[in-house]
Amino acid sequence: MKKLINDPRRVVEEAVAGFEAAHGDLVTVSHDPIYIARKNAPRQGKVALVSGGGSGHEPLHGGFVGFGMLDAAVPGPVFTSPTPDPILAATKAVDGGAGVLHIVKNYTGDVLNFETAADLASADGIDVQTVIVDDDVAVKDSLYTAGRRGVAGTVLVEKIAGAAAERGDDLAAVAAIATRVNSVTRSMGVALTPCVVPHAGEPSFTLADDEIEIGIGIHGEPGRERIKIEPADAIVDRILAPIVDDLPFASGDRVLLFVNGLGGTPQVELYIVFRRAAEALAERGITVSRTLVGNFVTSLEMQGMSITVMKLDDELKELWDAPVETAALRWGR
Amino acid sequence: MKKLINDPRRVVEEAVAGFEAAHGDLVTVSHDPIYIARKNAPRQGKVALVSGGGSGHEPLHGGFVGFGMLDAAVPGPVFTSPTPDPILAATKAVDGGAGVLHIVKNYTGDVLNFETAADLASADGIDVQTVIVDDDVAVKDSLYTAGRRGVAGTVLVEKIAGAAAERGDDLAAVAAIATRVNSVTRSMGVALTPCVVPHAGEPSFTLADDEIEIGIGIHGEPGRERIKIEPADAIVDRILAPIVDDLPFASGDRVLLFVNGLGGTPQVELYIVFRRAAEALAERGITVSRTLVGNFVTSLEMQGMSITVMKLDDELKELWDAPVETAALRWGR
Repeated sequence: MKKLINDPRRVVEEAVAGFEAAHGDLVTVSHDPIYIARKNAPRQGKVALVSGGGSGHEPLHGGFVGFGMLDAAVPGPVFTSPTPDPILAATKAVDGGAGVLHIVKNYTGDVLNFETAADLASADGIDVQTVIVDDDVAVKDSLYTAGRRGVAGTVLVEKIAGAAAERGDDLAAVAAIATRVNSVTRSMGVALTPCVVPHAGEPSFTLADDEIEIGIGIHGEPGRERIKIEPADAIVDRILAPIVDDLPFASGDRVLLFVNGLGGTPQVELYIVFRRAAEALAERGITVSRTLVGNFVTSLEMQGMSITVMKLDDELKELWDAPVETAALRWGR
Repeated sequence: MKKLINDPRRVVEEAVAGFEAAHGDLVTVSHDPIYIARKNAPRQGKVALVSGGGSGHEPLHGGFVGFGMLDAAVPGPVFTSPTPDPILAATKAVDGGAGVLHIVKNYTGDVLNFETAADLASADGIDVQTVIVDDDVAVKDSLYTAGRRGVAGTVLVEKIAGAAAERGDDLAAVAAIATRVNSVTRSMGVALTPCVVPHAGEPSFTLADDEIEIGIGIHGEPGRERIKIEPADAIVDRILAPIVDDLPFASGDRVLLFVNGLGGTPQVELYIVFRRAAEALAERGITVSRTLVGNFVTSLEMQGMSITVMKLDDELKELWDAPVETAALRWGR
């Protein structure tokens, strides 16, 4: 295992300290318990958004803290849920009296710990609602969860719900928007290589030199099938079909197409993937109106990618276009 | 070799087509010869900036085409200079009558081909000036060049010269600013793993499981030494010292600190590096006033990173902060 780390047990603490040093204009950091909050939180009268989960998926979630997106992010250990304590502390720290929305990827540990934190916050008089993200069409009932997993679609939920909170929507309305984004978003991924969790020191799975895993989870959980590597266009077609068929997306739909790198994939490959995905949607009469390409929900150094498609309407498009100012996503302000 | 590609000979063409499909709001693409131009170029009366070089370093350079940065980028084959033809075509396409600045990383092929294109453009009546970027302190006279190599500092030259052109500076002034940025910028990198050029199919060098290459070039050219892997903080100290000593940076300086991922490095590791680099600069009395962290000048899927330090003055800081709107760098507009 070759990594740019000091102590495998201090990876998250040191990375968060570096994040604070780099982005002190956008965030403030609590080191015990660990969470990343928006600078000058809480904002009185604004619904606050809190997300979090195991580390190793950066820039998710800390990279999305700031104007127009999250008010706080709670990073757990690598690929391990944060405990209720830091989630509760973050929730209290950013509540501005208008309530807090928890955005939770559908993994059993995350769901339970956010639920406990929400219960404790409610007992303290904070109004908390929760939206569970489960956009991954690859498998039901995976290694770490019951039901579908939450993957790259989480970025779209956080961006759009963040914009709704910023324009002044109340907690019920922000939660409804977040739920709506999740309901029109579908994703699926593919891995070319595994990744190594620092404290484990070894890959959590292995792939032969000519094998890829279709439907990979963002912690390396098994997907649908393991196949011999194919040309990029064939791989795209193989994972786009179940995405489109699931909602289903149909001719005449306008969508946001998001090609997400899993951490170790060269950018040229992400654009080769984007090219075919856009073309394949066009062949089905689906119009790509908004786009996102890059490493946003990663699995450490894993090579591979995921494709996410979100069905747009005028309101979702307007909220997507609204200004955002975070370390990893920034425009229009 | 496992890659998300179709035909190794069509990697650049297909990636550029994907880039066009994803970022048609920012750029227009010429496919024969291949170059990426800013939407609605040329801008009458504005100095135009053109850069380029071998592909495989994305988002450099295409990701930096847009408002406040480049007017055109010319991607060559992977790790191979573009020929004069597309450079000349791009230069003609974006000239708005105020002249064109060529920003060229110091590799022999790039320097010669940009020089030929500049001569041909001049013969056509276009005023062209050239700035050579050579920020890498690792080695002199490397595999592909005489003198120092141009690496991640190129992003800073392109951003700041782009802002100067956008505010209306004339060609001589924009060239002077670009030269000034290069003169106060120093970089050095380290590789943990090699990368595989698609049409070669094999790594251009090998590293043992416990080895790293200090002073690596962005095409995998040899650096200063090959050592056993060390804790991240020791590696940072090892490459930051020659950077600081070279200019030299001194107590009281305000700097921009840029930690650049080489493509395959998890973001947590980049922030662990940033943490120590900022701390080590502070120990020397050097103040980090501006920051940049991410994959900006890459070597395909190579794991590793580079550190770049630029000495700031009020004007450079103002130009750095000025609005920019490109696929890979965007703020303030």
